[in-house]
Amino acid sequence: MANIFQPPPGTRDFFPADMAVRRYIEDTWRKVSLRHGFVEVDGPTFEVLDLYKVKGGGGDEIVSQLFHFESRGEDKKEFALRPEFTPTLARMVAAKANSLPRPIKWFSIPRCYRAERPQKGRLREFIQWNVDMLGGDTFETRLQFDLETAALALDCLREFGFTADDIRLSWNNRTFVEHFFRLVGFPNERYPFAFALLDRLAKLSSEQRREQYGKNGLTEQQQVFFERMAEGGNPVEESFWDALKIPIGNEFRLEVVMGQRLMDEELTPMGFPGYLKYDPSIVRGLAYYTGFVWEIAGTRGQNRAIAGGGRYDKLIEMFGGPSLPATGFGMGDVVLRNLLEETSKLPANPGPTPDIFLINALRTTDLATQLLAQLRTAKLAAITSYKATKNIGKLLQDASAAGAKLALILAPVEYEKTGGPFVKLKNLATREESEIPLPEILTAILAALAQPPNV
Amino acid sequence: MANIFQPPPGTRDFFPADMAVRRYIEDTWRKVSLRHGFVEVDGPTFEVLDLYKVKGGGGDEIVSQLFHFESRGEDKKEFALRPEFTPTLARMVAAKANSLPRPIKWFSIPRCYRAERPQKGRLREFIQWNVDMLGGDTFETRLQFDLETAALALDCLREFGFTADDIRLSWNNRTFVEHFFRLVGFPNERYPFAFALLDRLAKLSSEQRREQYGKNGLTEQQQVFFERMAEGGNPVEESFWDALKIPIGNEFRLEVVMGQRLMDEELTPMGFPGYLKYDPSIVRGLAYYTGFVWEIAGTRGQNRAIAGGGRYDKLIEMFGGPSLPATGFGMGDVVLRNLLEETSKLPANPGPTPDIFLINALRTTDLATQLLAQLRTAKLAAITSYKATKNIGKLLQDASAAGAKLALILAPVEYEKTGGPFVKLKNLATREESEIPLPEILTAILAALAQPPNV
Repeated sequence: MANIFQPPPGTRDFFPADMAVRRYIEDTWRKVSLRHGFVEVDGPTFEVLDLYKVKGGGGDEIVSQLFHFESRGEDKKEFALRPEFTPTLARMVAAKANSLPRPIKWFSIPRCYRAERPQKGRLREFIQWNVDMLGGDTFETRLQFDLETAALALDCLREFGFTADDIRLSWNNRTFVEHFFRLVGFPNERYPFAFALLDRLAKLSSEQRREQYGKNGLTEQQQVFFERMAEGGNPVEESFWDALKIPIGNEFRLEVVMGQRLMDEELTPMGFPGYLKYDPSIVRGLAYYTGFVWEIAGTRGQNRAIAGGGRYDKLIEMFGGPSLPATGFGMGDVVLRNLLEETSKLPANPGPTPDIFLINALRTTDLATQLLAQLRTAKLAAITSYKATKNIGKLLQDASAAGAKLALILAPVEYEKTGGPFVKLKNLATREESEIPLPEILTAILAALAQPPNV
Repeated sequence: MANIFQPPPGTRDFFPADMAVRRYIEDTWRKVSLRHGFVEVDGPTFEVLDLYKVKGGGGDEIVSQLFHFESRGEDKKEFALRPEFTPTLARMVAAKANSLPRPIKWFSIPRCYRAERPQKGRLREFIQWNVDMLGGDTFETRLQFDLETAALALDCLREFGFTADDIRLSWNNRTFVEHFFRLVGFPNERYPFAFALLDRLAKLSSEQRREQYGKNGLTEQQQVFFERMAEGGNPVEESFWDALKIPIGNEFRLEVVMGQRLMDEELTPMGFPGYLKYDPSIVRGLAYYTGFVWEIAGTRGQNRAIAGGGRYDKLIEMFGGPSLPATGFGMGDVVLRNLLEETSKLPANPGPTPDIFLINALRTTDLATQLLAQLRTAKLAAITSYKATKNIGKLLQDASAAGAKLALILAPVEYEKTGGPFVKLKNLATREESEIPLPEILTAILAALAQPPNV
């Protein structure tokens, strides 16, 4: 016997039960996106490799994290499987920036790829919901767009059954953090280093932190700032700065303290009371975020963030487009599914169910075949059993297990009745049963399906 | 200004209008599959490269047609982007053959990849609907399964709006063709060569045919056989064999002549009169087909086949599974979309439309924001305009253009009325308009949406 092949490590086979869960997740993402006025887009699964060097500043480090390959023939090029959707989005927007109606409200549900070794919650192939909103001429409009995208993420998680007890949106604003860096004396060009350090802070031991401070020549004040951040200090509170002996000016009060209050006031009436929390430790790793940044994570357990996003006002320019403010987020299927399972929020049967299950207890199959064709021509989802049994009771159990709304029963007694052939129709929710003359069966089925399920 | 990147040649960007068409095609495939009792599956986008060498007999020729790449690290392996779904299906079935309920009725809608240079109708990345039905202990059951899959393909094309005037299912049976090969003296081991020649026959000039005959040492009779086939002769008719001076035995009459009549009789009552035609030139290129083979193509124009399939009873064994008869087909999105466009069968607006379009002519946005949140919480698809204009007439035009069912109008006169705030609700299909007290608006909207569209 030949070998049985395995799927590549870090990828998944979607047998029917897993596929039903995947469809349920994707369909929910899509449905809620449309509900908020976003329209769907997509791009190729692979792009020219150089596209992925733009955000990293042209470096080759990113290449080691990509699956990449060459095309053959005259147009020999290096391609890479997309690790995320944002570069494709930026390329597409840059190409048509002037003809697209503003604001651009796009979502996509691409499969994405990482060349790294798989680990729990991080596979080599995953599916990611991407939402982006581009445009906004004023500060107020841009803030509104930040809120619209975050509200979409929360509304979708509410659709999955999560409440404020299950999940938390933690937010920050990079312009606040830049103020903090300024106060401890970092020059502009060291902000990227300081953001990167802040992003990794929670993962470093106190010894590793000291090593970083020494290697990068941090001042005493800068070290105290990071130590207080590591302890969970909140630099929006003016008392945070007392220990650093740094006096707070009006500019700080206006931009940071008032800014945080303004955002809290705007975020609260989004319709999601209790879901939001200011968190000064959130900065998001990626260098391209410019303002509002946020993450959503489960409130219990050790799960990774389910979703993350923020404002990235410079990105479209980096890809050759016009200056176009933008905000958005991504949500992956792997971590979401883990959380849905851990919190028992997956529906027992998330897949589509048939309208009708045909039970054939006659000796021949001609009528059954003909009726199935007739039902499907009437656009009904009609299934049947392929078992040899004519045991109607057992087949009714199969019909219920398949989640069918109705059972259409071809039984010898009714079929051979004087006065013409009859068939039986059973409503599997109400257990109600009726005998219908064969020529009237389609009308009877359509009427039964039009009724609300619990009549 | 930086370069604007292009998508890789042979791939597509799906901006909103193209994405709506893609969703329409995929949703139709999915809906009709479910209607016929098939369940959805999927696998990884890439597989271990060796998986694609199984069908080709272990050779390396297939590798040049694949995009392939290596993983890094300890589990260094060669992977390839899937060129089709069948090897993944065979691997999945082989792995769980004993625990899967029979018959297996699976469909999938994977993106697939070809490394070759793109041409019209053949892109490097495309989407393919795959349908497979596995099992069947008797000849009759297997024939029924052949018909069930072909009926699904036809029902789906009918759902797209095609009639018997637009498309034709041309079918053949490889066991008939093996009889023809036997009659002209080919030994078993030369059948693959003879099938391959028959498959390419229409593309060869008379000179190229003669070259093939010479190079492969064909007998006089064998040459006449292929020449008659090239002219469109029908070897199911006994007169075909007169010119070859080959007497027809009872075995031939039974298997071929009766076989064709039997299939014609079974195929006709599938509910698709006029769609089917026996065509002895159809053999399908791939070596793994074993019986019934078929293609669907447009009846007008120069289009490639829209769909193709057949029976492949040995394939699951080749992938290490048990002996399991199987039949199925594939349909690609590129050729289908071309035909839908050429025959003007694409709906004018295939995308999803919103329930409600909110028009805010008030001076502030607070009420509009609050109402949008309320509508979306009630699971309604609610959109609004981001334009600065308060011109209700112009915004109503935008609402109609977006395909919204209702317009909710916040107009100053009604809002400031004595007796409390009123808003206007306009049914965009009937042009009917009513004034509703603000607290009753959600009830009124839900009632209006529950009505059939043309009331």
